[in-house]
Amino acid sequence: MAEKKCTEVESAIDTLVTEFHKAANDGATMSSAGLANLVSSQLSNRVKNSGDPAGMAALMKQLNIKDSEGITFQEFWGLIKQLATAEHEQSYKQKKLVECRCRLV
Amino acid sequence: MAEKKCTEVESAIDTLVTEFHKAANDGATMSSAGLANLVSSQLSNRVKNSGDPAGMAALMKQLNIKDSEGITFQEFWGLIKQLATAEHEQSYKQKKLVECRCRLV
Repeated sequence: MAEKKCTEVESAIDTLVTEFHKAANDGATMSSAGLANLVSSQLSNRVKNSGDPAGMAALMKQLNIKDSEGITFQEFWGLIKQLATAEHEQSYKQKKLVECRCRLV
Repeated sequence: MAEKKCTEVESAIDTLVTEFHKAANDGATMSSAGLANLVSSQLSNRVKNSGDPAGMAALMKQLNIKDSEGITFQEFWGLIKQLATAEHEQSYKQKKLVECRCRLV
Protein backbone atom coordinates (compact mmCIF):
# COMPACT_ATOMS: atom_id res chain seq x y z
CA MET A 1 0.00 0.00 0.00
CA ALA A 2 1.27 3.44 -0.83
CA GLU A 3 2.74 5.35 2.06
CA LYS A 4 1.00 8.47 3.22
CA LYS A 5 2.06 11.58 5.03
CA CYS A 6 2.43 10.95 8.73
CA THR A 7 0.46 12.95 11.26
CA GLU A 8 2.19 14.35 14.36
CA VAL A 9 1.07 11.43 16.53
CA GLU A 10 2.12 8.87 13.92
CA SER A 11 5.51 10.56 13.57
CA ALA A 12 5.92 10.52 17.36
CA ILE A 13 5.29 6.75 17.43
CA ASP A 14 7.73 6.31 14.52
CA THR A 15 10.40 8.24 16.39
CA LEU A 16 10.10 6.12 19.52
CA VAL A 17 10.23 2.85 17.56
CA THR A 18 13.11 4.08 15.41
CA GLU A 19 15.22 5.15 18.39
CA PHE A 20 14.77 1.73 20.00
CA HIS A 21 15.92 0.04 16.80
CA LYS A 22 18.93 2.32 16.47
CA ALA A 23 19.96 1.62 20.07
CA ALA A 24 19.40 -2.12 19.53
CA ASN A 25 21.35 -2.13 16.24
CA ASP A 26 18.21 -3.54 14.61
CA GLY A 27 18.25 -6.49 17.01
CA ALA A 28 15.41 -7.74 19.22
CA THR A 29 16.93 -6.24 22.36
CA MET A 30 19.42 -3.56 23.31
CA SER A 31 22.30 -3.84 25.75
CA SER A 32 22.47 -1.81 28.95
CA ALA A 33 25.17 0.27 27.23
CA GLY A 34 22.71 0.88 24.36
CA LEU A 35 20.06 2.04 26.82
CA ALA A 36 22.58 4.26 28.62
CA ASN A 37 23.53 5.85 25.32
CA LEU A 38 19.89 6.37 24.33
CA VAL A 39 19.03 7.92 27.70
CA SER A 40 22.05 10.24 27.77
CA SER A 41 21.60 11.34 24.15
CA GLN A 42 17.78 11.47 23.96
CA LEU A 43 16.41 11.85 27.49
CA SER A 44 18.91 14.11 29.20
CA ASN A 45 16.23 16.69 30.01
CA ARG A 46 13.92 14.12 31.58
CA VAL A 47 16.07 11.58 33.39
CA LYS A 48 18.15 12.77 36.31
CA ASN A 49 21.87 11.91 36.16
CA SER A 50 21.36 10.46 32.69
CA GLY A 51 25.07 10.53 31.86
CA ASP A 52 26.16 8.95 35.14
CA PRO A 53 26.59 5.15 35.61
CA ALA A 54 25.07 5.34 39.11
CA GLY A 55 22.05 7.23 37.71
CA MET A 56 21.59 4.61 35.00
CA ALA A 57 21.90 1.78 37.53
CA ALA A 58 19.17 3.42 39.63
CA LEU A 59 16.94 3.83 36.58
CA MET A 60 17.37 0.21 35.55
CA LYS A 61 16.60 -0.95 39.07
CA GLN A 62 13.49 1.24 39.12
CA LEU A 63 12.37 -0.28 35.82
CA ASN A 64 13.23 -3.78 37.07
CA ILE A 65 15.68 -4.36 34.21
CA LYS A 66 18.52 -6.82 34.81
CA ASP A 67 21.92 -5.63 33.63
CA SER A 68 22.91 -9.01 32.20
CA GLU A 69 19.83 -9.46 30.03
CA GLY A 70 18.95 -7.76 26.78
CA ILE A 71 16.47 -4.92 27.15
CA THR A 72 13.28 -5.59 25.22
CA PHE A 73 11.00 -3.13 23.47
CA GLN A 74 8.45 -3.69 26.25
CA GLU A 75 11.01 -2.71 28.89
CA PHE A 76 12.04 0.35 26.89
CA TRP A 77 8.35 1.20 26.53
CA GLY A 78 7.99 1.01 30.33
CA LEU A 79 10.43 3.90 30.59
CA ILE A 80 8.60 5.92 27.93
CA LYS A 81 5.27 5.27 29.64
CA GLN A 82 6.66 6.39 32.98
CA LEU A 83 7.98 9.66 31.51
CA ALA A 84 4.77 10.33 29.56
CA THR A 85 2.58 9.63 32.60
CA ALA A 86 4.65 11.96 34.78
CA GLU A 87 4.38 14.69 32.15
CA HIS A 88 0.63 14.13 31.79
CA GLU A 89 0.08 14.34 35.55
CA GLN A 90 2.20 17.44 35.91
CA SER A 91 0.63 19.30 33.01
CA TYR A 92 -2.88 18.35 34.13
CA LYS A 93 -2.12 19.55 37.67
CA GLN A 94 -0.81 22.82 36.29
CA LYS A 95 -3.87 23.09 34.03
CA LYS A 96 -1.74 24.30 31.20
CA LEU A 97 0.27 23.05 28.31
CA VAL A 98 3.43 24.63 27.04
CA GLU A 99 5.00 24.06 23.68
CA CYS A 100 8.04 22.26 25.03
CA ARG A 101 8.14 20.92 28.56
CA CYS A 102 11.68 19.60 28.44
CA ARG A 103 13.20 19.96 31.86
CA LEU A 104 14.61 18.00 34.74
CA VAL A 105 11.81 17.04 37.10
CA MET B 1 14.59 25.67 36.00
CA ALA B 2 15.31 26.98 32.56
CA GLU B 3 13.83 24.99 29.70
CA LYS B 4 16.16 23.29 27.29
CA LYS B 5 15.94 22.23 23.70
CA CYS B 6 13.98 19.00 23.33
CA THR B 7 15.52 15.94 21.74
CA GLU B 8 13.54 13.91 19.19
CA VAL B 9 12.40 11.38 21.80
CA GLU B 10 11.41 14.10 24.27
CA SER B 11 9.47 15.91 21.54
CA ALA B 12 7.72 12.66 20.65
CA ILE B 13 6.59 12.20 24.27
CA ASP B 14 5.48 15.85 24.38
CA THR B 15 3.40 15.35 21.24
CA LEU B 16 1.58 12.32 22.63
CA VAL B 17 0.81 14.04 25.94
CA THR B 18 -0.25 17.25 24.21
CA GLU B 19 -2.63 15.49 21.83
CA PHE B 20 -4.31 13.72 24.76
CA HIS B 21 -4.79 17.04 26.54
CA LYS B 22 -6.17 18.70 23.41
CA ALA B 23 -8.67 15.87 22.92
CA ALA B 24 -9.59 15.99 26.63
CA ASN B 25 -10.01 19.79 26.59
CA ASP B 26 -7.41 19.89 29.38
CA GLY B 27 -9.57 17.62 31.54
CA ALA B 28 -8.58 14.37 33.26
CA THR B 29 -10.37 12.21 30.69
CA MET B 30 -11.65 12.51 27.13
CA SER B 31 -15.04 11.51 25.80
CA SER B 32 -15.50 8.77 23.23
CA ALA B 33 -16.20 11.55 20.72
CA GLY B 34 -12.84 13.12 21.67
CA LEU B 35 -11.09 9.81 21.09
CA ALA B 36 -12.89 9.33 17.78
CA ASN B 37 -11.77 12.77 16.68
CA LEU B 38 -8.17 12.13 17.76
CA VAL B 39 -8.07 8.78 15.96
CA SER B 40 -9.60 10.09 12.74
CA SER B 41 -7.40 13.21 12.66
CA GLN B 42 -4.14 11.76 14.00
CA LEU B 43 -4.15 8.00 13.42
CA SER B 44 -5.90 7.62 10.10
CA ASN B 45 -2.89 5.83 8.58
CA ARG B 46 -2.65 3.34 11.44
CA VAL B 47 -6.17 2.52 12.56
CA LYS B 48 -8.47 0.82 10.09
CA ASN B 49 -11.84 2.48 9.55
CA SER B 50 -10.74 5.36 11.76
CA GLY B 51 -13.48 7.68 10.50
CA ASP B 52 -16.25 5.12 10.84
CA PRO B 53 -18.41 4.74 14.01
CA ALA B 54 -18.36 0.94 13.69
CA GLY B 55 -14.55 0.98 13.39
CA MET B 56 -14.28 3.16 16.51
CA ALA B 57 -16.68 0.90 18.42
CA ALA B 58 -14.53 -2.10 17.51
CA LEU B 59 -11.37 -0.28 18.60
CA MET B 60 -12.88 0.72 21.93
CA LYS B 61 -14.05 -2.83 22.52
CA GLN B 62 -10.58 -4.13 21.71
CA LEU B 63 -9.06 -1.66 24.18
CA ASN B 64 -11.73 -2.55 26.75
CA ILE B 65 -12.93 1.06 26.97
CA LYS B 66 -16.54 1.63 28.01
CA ASP B 67 -18.42 4.17 25.93
CA SER B 68 -20.13 5.78 28.91
CA GLU B 69 -16.98 6.42 30.92
CA GLY B 70 -14.32 9.04 30.39
CA ILE B 71 -11.20 7.75 28.65
CA THR B 72 -8.13 8.12 30.85
CA PHE B 73 -4.55 8.81 29.83
CA GLN B 74 -3.71 5.19 30.71
CA GLU B 75 -6.40 3.93 28.32
CA PHE B 76 -5.21 6.30 25.58
CA TRP B 77 -1.66 5.09 26.26
CA GLY B 78 -2.86 1.47 25.78
CA LEU B 79 -3.74 2.38 22.19
CA ILE B 80 -0.38 4.08 21.60
CA LYS B 81 1.47 1.09 23.06
CA GLN B 82 -0.45 -1.30 20.83
CA LEU B 83 0.38 0.70 17.70
CA ALA B 84 4.04 1.12 18.70
CA THR B 85 4.42 -2.58 19.51
CA ALA B 86 2.88 -3.58 16.16
CA GLU B 87 5.25 -1.24 14.34
CA HIS B 88 8.24 -2.52 16.32
CA GLU B 89 7.40 -6.14 15.53
CA GLN B 90 6.83 -5.45 11.88
CA SER B 91 10.01 -3.42 11.38
CA TYR B 92 12.08 -5.96 13.33
CA LYS B 93 10.66 -8.77 11.21
CA GLN B 94 11.50 -6.86 8.05
CA LYS B 95 14.97 -6.11 9.43
CA LYS B 96 14.77 -2.61 8.13
CA LEU B 97 13.61 0.80 9.12
CA VAL B 98 12.13 3.33 6.81
CA GLU B 99 11.82 7.02 7.45
CA CYS B 100 8.05 7.03 7.62
CA ARG B 101 6.09 3.86 8.08
CA CYS B 102 2.64 5.38 8.03
CA ARG B 103 0.27 2.88 6.55
CA LEU B 104 -2.76 0.81 7.30
CA VAL B 105 -1.69 -2.46 8.91
